[in-house]
Amino acid sequence: MNERLAKRTEDISAFYVMEILRRAKQLEEQGVDVIHMEIGEPDFLSPPKVVSEGIRFLETGNVKYTPAAGAMELRQKIAEFYLERYSVSVDPRRIFITPGATGAFLLAFGVSLNPGEEVLMADPCYPCNSNFVRLFEGQTKLIPVDAKDRYQLSAELIGQHWGQSTKGVLIASPSNPTGTVISPEALKAAVLSVDEKRGCFYSDEIYHGLAYGERTASALEFSDKVFVINSFSKYFCMTGWRIGWVIVPDEFVEATERLAQNIFISTPSNSQFAAIAAFDSETIEELERRRLEFAARRDFLYHKLLELGFSIPVKPEGAFYIYADCSKLSLDSYQLAVDLLEEEGVAVTPGRDFGQHNANQTIRFAYTTSLARIAQAIQRLENFINRKFPDESLNR
Amino acid sequence: MNERLAKRTEDISAFYVMEILRRAKQLEEQGVDVIHMEIGEPDFLSPPKVVSEGIRFLETGNVKYTPAAGAMELRQKIAEFYLERYSVSVDPRRIFITPGATGAFLLAFGVSLNPGEEVLMADPCYPCNSNFVRLFEGQTKLIPVDAKDRYQLSAELIGQHWGQSTKGVLIASPSNPTGTVISPEALKAAVLSVDEKRGCFYSDEIYHGLAYGERTASALEFSDKVFVINSFSKYFCMTGWRIGWVIVPDEFVEATERLAQNIFISTPSNSQFAAIAAFDSETIEELERRRLEFAARRDFLYHKLLELGFSIPVKPEGAFYIYADCSKLSLDSYQLAVDLLEEEGVAVTPGRDFGQHNANQTIRFAYTTSLARIAQAIQRLENFINRKFPDESLNR
Repeated sequence: MNERLAKRTEDISAFYVMEILRRAKQLEEQGVDVIHMEIGEPDFLSPPKVVSEGIRFLETGNVKYTPAAGAMELRQKIAEFYLERYSVSVDPRRIFITPGATGAFLLAFGVSLNPGEEVLMADPCYPCNSNFVRLFEGQTKLIPVDAKDRYQLSAELIGQHWGQSTKGVLIASPSNPTGTVISPEALKAAVLSVDEKRGCFYSDEIYHGLAYGERTASALEFSDKVFVINSFSKYFCMTGWRIGWVIVPDEFVEATERLAQNIFISTPSNSQFAAIAAFDSETIEELERRRLEFAARRDFLYHKLLELGFSIPVKPEGAFYIYADCSKLSLDSYQLAVDLLEEEGVAVTPGRDFGQHNANQTIRFAYTTSLARIAQAIQRLENFINRKFPDESLNR
Repeated sequence: MNERLAKRTEDISAFYVMEILRRAKQLEEQGVDVIHMEIGEPDFLSPPKVVSEGIRFLETGNVKYTPAAGAMELRQKIAEFYLERYSVSVDPRRIFITPGATGAFLLAFGVSLNPGEEVLMADPCYPCNSNFVRLFEGQTKLIPVDAKDRYQLSAELIGQHWGQSTKGVLIASPSNPTGTVISPEALKAAVLSVDEKRGCFYSDEIYHGLAYGERTASALEFSDKVFVINSFSKYFCMTGWRIGWVIVPDEFVEATERLAQNIFISTPSNSQFAAIAAFDSETIEELERRRLEFAARRDFLYHKLLELGFSIPVKPEGAFYIYADCSKLSLDSYQLAVDLLEEEGVAVTPGRDFGQHNANQTIRFAYTTSLARIAQAIQRLENFINRKFPDESLNR
């Protein structure tokens, strides 16, 4: 370890999928056709109205800073959105526009987390979250969750694992990588249990809007003491614009404002003015059509993976991921991911990117590619399996 | 202090100028004409070619993530720029595109600074810098600098103040708020002195390109072990696009890549593809015309402020600021700033935003407004002074 490097850099992990991606690019340069099911990014273009508003703004040439907390017009739009979609009234002062959900996490943890304090998270979960905690010298306590938990924390699990140094809890619903949604009742119980302990509840709602079953409740419906993190990247298909938001409890408004002034100055202006159009009815209609397309892909992929012998103990109801148990094929899912790429040109994400619990027997499929391509990937998976297990029928 | 708030939020200071800005807006809403000389943002529009490239990119609708380190095409352009402008060869792998210089500081300090480690900075300096250090649980040691130092640190001052827990040194040239430029020789000596101690040298070069006298050398000319922070906001007039870069020493490349993946995912794509046009010859020609306009404003404002009785012990040679000693008018520069705004509609930034050293007898004027407006501001300052000191001639 070089002494000039900060110690935290030892703990902030790289994503294994980056190695998969690197190799996929190499193969593509050699002319191999790779089907990308590793990427957590919608394949759709940005909504037309968003694009045209972005262009209209750029045409002025007047691309200046906005206030650190964001353009008030956008903050008000988001407040209206919460009223319409969740019947929750939020003071726009509590809404901070950020450079993506990553910026939202920087603010939320930055204003609330002291060195040594602990945040509870489900294992598996999105790996960046614990890296943010590490960035601020906090610690993550990963709590193994299983199908019986719908891969989500609960008030009960929180109670069991809450310790002296626990500062708060992060729940992501719909979850990345499992796609599972916490029920409104379970979310409410979890939120209230953290409120009771005067802890911080961080609700990662960046896949809200991409749900195909039960309603996804916002933590804000149950308490105004929570942090809600959201983004225009997923449902709104605006990844490259880098824009998201965080809603903070009233007591954090002033500190969040100061931190945002320092670490962002402001969020990209053209992304902000474009995002105002994300709530237009014509945009929402288009996004709802896309949601149905995602649902159709989910249904197709889910059933085909089951037929191929993967086990998916909880049917995913949101995001664009299926977290599949591949233990019938391999007990080293990273190696499986490498083999699938090398032999069949199918790129997936190995479970170890999301934690330790059963990580080596799971892989994540992203259905961020067309149904036709997904069907092709299924055919390739079938070829792979028939070649590896010529005499067996995996689950037939 | 609320126990849910992180302790660091007590130390991350608000900017006093925000109060000035808030009041300026109120006055403007009441119909008062305010001349803004408090704002650290060029008044020019973004360069036309940059805007048209940004629009061309948005028109595709395909606004996706780029690699975390940035689009390779842009990183290469920046490498070419260093070769042309500084005769320095930089491996594009060491260049990371960031959401503004703020993002560059997040990466630079995030990968290098451990809790309790100290960074030396000049007092006065840009206030966010020490707040970044605090964010990562580090400490800033402010070293008072005066006219005789050209308001810059030197190898000598660094040697005097280097202690057990010192990790590195930040030098900003051209400086905000003083506008002074460190000589290539003094910069070289400072860089080498830090290299010798195996410390980290952070070179804030975000006002490079905006220099009106001596050449501004890059720290990269003297060592490849330095961090160089730069931005498209100032010289390139692209504030609202939120795009900058950091060049890291080779040993930090891998850790910086991981940190960027986690805390940014990527920098706004359209800002990146637009920024490629920032290096076109027609854009550089336009920016050089603007530089001359800034130089003319500097000359005018400098001489007029001296005539009015302000003291400016070092003629500023860069950025777009004049840091003026106002002690003949007031020993409370914050109150002076308030009075100038309330009585004359001239907004300036009080010295205490930049440190403690002589802060109450200095104010910063930004010449980010037209010559005509600056002339108007000077007239108002003269009215103010004549009213306050009817019988005296301040420096005549």
